[in-house]
Amino acid sequence: MLTDLLEEGSLPHRFRALWDEIAPIGRDGRSGGYLRYALTEPELRLREWFHEQADRRGMPVTDDGNGNLFARWGDPEAGDAVLTGSHFDSVPHGGAYDGPLGIVSAFLAVDELRAAGVTPARPVVIGAFVEEEGARFGVPCLGSRLLTGEIAVDRAAGLRDADGVSFAEALGAGPAGARPELLGRFAAFVELHVEQGRAMVDADAPIGVASAIWPHGRWRFEFTGEGNHAGTTRMADRRDPMLTYAFTVLAANKEARLRGAHATVGRVAVEPNATNAIPSKVTGWLDARAAEPETLTGLVDAVRVKAAERARRDGTGVALTEESATPLVAFDGGLAGRLASLLDAPVLPTGAGHDAGVLAAHLPTAMLFVRNPTGVSHSPAESADDVDCAAGVTALARVLEELTCR
Amino acid sequence: MLTDLLEEGSLPHRFRALWDEIAPIGRDGRSGGYLRYALTEPELRLREWFHEQADRRGMPVTDDGNGNLFARWGDPEAGDAVLTGSHFDSVPHGGAYDGPLGIVSAFLAVDELRAAGVTPARPVVIGAFVEEEGARFGVPCLGSRLLTGEIAVDRAAGLRDADGVSFAEALGAGPAGARPELLGRFAAFVELHVEQGRAMVDADAPIGVASAIWPHGRWRFEFTGEGNHAGTTRMADRRDPMLTYAFTVLAANKEARLRGAHATVGRVAVEPNATNAIPSKVTGWLDARAAEPETLTGLVDAVRVKAAERARRDGTGVALTEESATPLVAFDGGLAGRLASLLDAPVLPTGAGHDAGVLAAHLPTAMLFVRNPTGVSHSPAESADDVDCAAGVTALARVLEELTCR
Repeated sequence: MLTDLLEEGSLPHRFRALWDEIAPIGRDGRSGGYLRYALTEPELRLREWFHEQADRRGMPVTDDGNGNLFARWGDPEAGDAVLTGSHFDSVPHGGAYDGPLGIVSAFLAVDELRAAGVTPARPVVIGAFVEEEGARFGVPCLGSRLLTGEIAVDRAAGLRDADGVSFAEALGAGPAGARPELLGRFAAFVELHVEQGRAMVDADAPIGVASAIWPHGRWRFEFTGEGNHAGTTRMADRRDPMLTYAFTVLAANKEARLRGAHATVGRVAVEPNATNAIPSKVTGWLDARAAEPETLTGLVDAVRVKAAERARRDGTGVALTEESATPLVAFDGGLAGRLASLLDAPVLPTGAGHDAGVLAAHLPTAMLFVRNPTGVSHSPAESADDVDCAAGVTALARVLEELTCR
Repeated sequence: MLTDLLEEGSLPHRFRALWDEIAPIGRDGRSGGYLRYALTEPELRLREWFHEQADRRGMPVTDDGNGNLFARWGDPEAGDAVLTGSHFDSVPHGGAYDGPLGIVSAFLAVDELRAAGVTPARPVVIGAFVEEEGARFGVPCLGSRLLTGEIAVDRAAGLRDADGVSFAEALGAGPAGARPELLGRFAAFVELHVEQGRAMVDADAPIGVASAIWPHGRWRFEFTGEGNHAGTTRMADRRDPMLTYAFTVLAANKEARLRGAHATVGRVAVEPNATNAIPSKVTGWLDARAAEPETLTGLVDAVRVKAAERARRDGTGVALTEESATPLVAFDGGLAGRLASLLDAPVLPTGAGHDAGVLAAHLPTAMLFVRNPTGVSHSPAESADDVDCAAGVTALARVLEELTCR
């Protein structure tokens, strides 16, 4: 079986050939990671590639007015379509697979179904959602939130990137906001995604089915002190917010470990950020996730209390702002069980947010994961084996057949 | 006396009038601090102002080919000149006084001497040194190091700013490097500077004389880990360099306090610096200073050991690079004592580096400090009282008279 798969013309080879078409787009030569921010040149090239792939397969493409693309196989007026797909955009210096794997696999799954002579009774739609990572405009899953009406149009339109360009400006027109008539034509959404941990390596399974997305959020800690000269200010006279920041980073790590939760401070901004100046302000962003909402609340509260205690000791100020919070998303249990049984795949939760998590509140939604041998993601080192990716295509094709024909 | 000083036409008023000429130049409206980087537009305007002030006083200006300006009162061929002055450039969002106070005070001191009918037997030269802070090209006291030959011309020429512009390009020509024949004409250097701590507030003295500059340096800590997804990576699987960084920040603070030394981490760079990504790399810059060289060495060694211990625990790597190290500078004890006695001023050490620290190895050098009511420096909140600044002018005029006439 494996030797067969690795032959010329085999599915892993076909996967690799299509994959290589987009592999160079937005790749940073220095880090090896990707800079595919929503609606910037590399992501616009990927969207062109999406149009080309859809054209090649005779699938007309529509834009929902929010920057999300949909390519359809089947009667455009028919309802009960099955939506699949993912996103093209990346985090800064992110990996190749997070997002694009779900779109490339969807086109190949359509090819598999056609080669097998399958004629779906209901349409198959391949979607490409915009700004899933929130890396450019700050709000993750922006495209799916707009489509479902989970973010106000005005707020989304006014979000600005680091250069001051608004989402509305980048989009050119709109955004259109909620599209209930479009959403109502979908009977289900299945997002295929590279796994972002090592649970499937431990389970020795190439494909998994998601049970739930952990509740998670982003909190901004602003630590304020007194900017001063690093050489001449006595230690006792200092109000150094870097100390409060550092203590809070360690406290978040400790509190997360105690609770079996996840906490990360991966982003920091310092004013003035000079070697010989005590900072006047340090801003740190906490990303926290846990299996249960009460664990997450307890974690963030504990970090807040620790930060405030340390701030009193340091003579600094601390302000905490919730930037985003996503509640527990439990995927449709019946659908997940049905797919796991069809694919003989394990069912597992994930700590990562996805467009599937947004759509799950609006229609039956499932996620398929493809094994990640290192568990590394949001990094140039993210990887997946071509054979596992081919297994993902096969699994997605079986799921699309199951949901459109039976 | 105080009422007299505050009258129209008094020295504090004359100080304020001249001070206000440069106060708007390079001031950032948002922070209230200064962005006067060497050889950028605001600093070039200050250099023009220097030429205007010198012209107004009939003092010809020369450039030493390294970007340092010298305005002369007296025979250009005469030796044994007394050099005074400071620098125009600032740290990012720095205060108004650090640097410019020494130059403005020098012009006013010349006015005081002339108004009193003093004709110095030896020339008075006012200097403006380039890139004292190292905020643009990374090496502090670059101008004085070039003049004295303490930095290689090629190295200085090739230093680049954040935009990739080299010092040689910014300068237009040169740098010329060591100018022993120019340096040889100076019998002494006296730099007046705002105090950058609160020792003179404690001593209740408007003017102080420096005894020494603490040995100090900058060390770059590079912490490397594994970039990964913040949501899905189990805490036990992480190699998060932000944790090692945070621990090292707190260790540096603790070790400095234990030794009566100063340690600051005021600058950090994170890759990729995204909220939902565990960093692959965190770089922190340690600024450390102590009264004795062995205390400084012990401090940096202790921080290095603590960082390495924590890195083992975090599964991260740590590399330490010394970016600059300046040994203890003991100013000429006889000169300091003579000036302290003349001015009835306290003698005190400082933790800050200055061009005077570089020149002290080449000619008799002294520093005068003007009281800083808050002790805050390298910050928009840096301040000095006009009456104290006027006392600084008077003190500098007395010192110049003492050194050029007696």
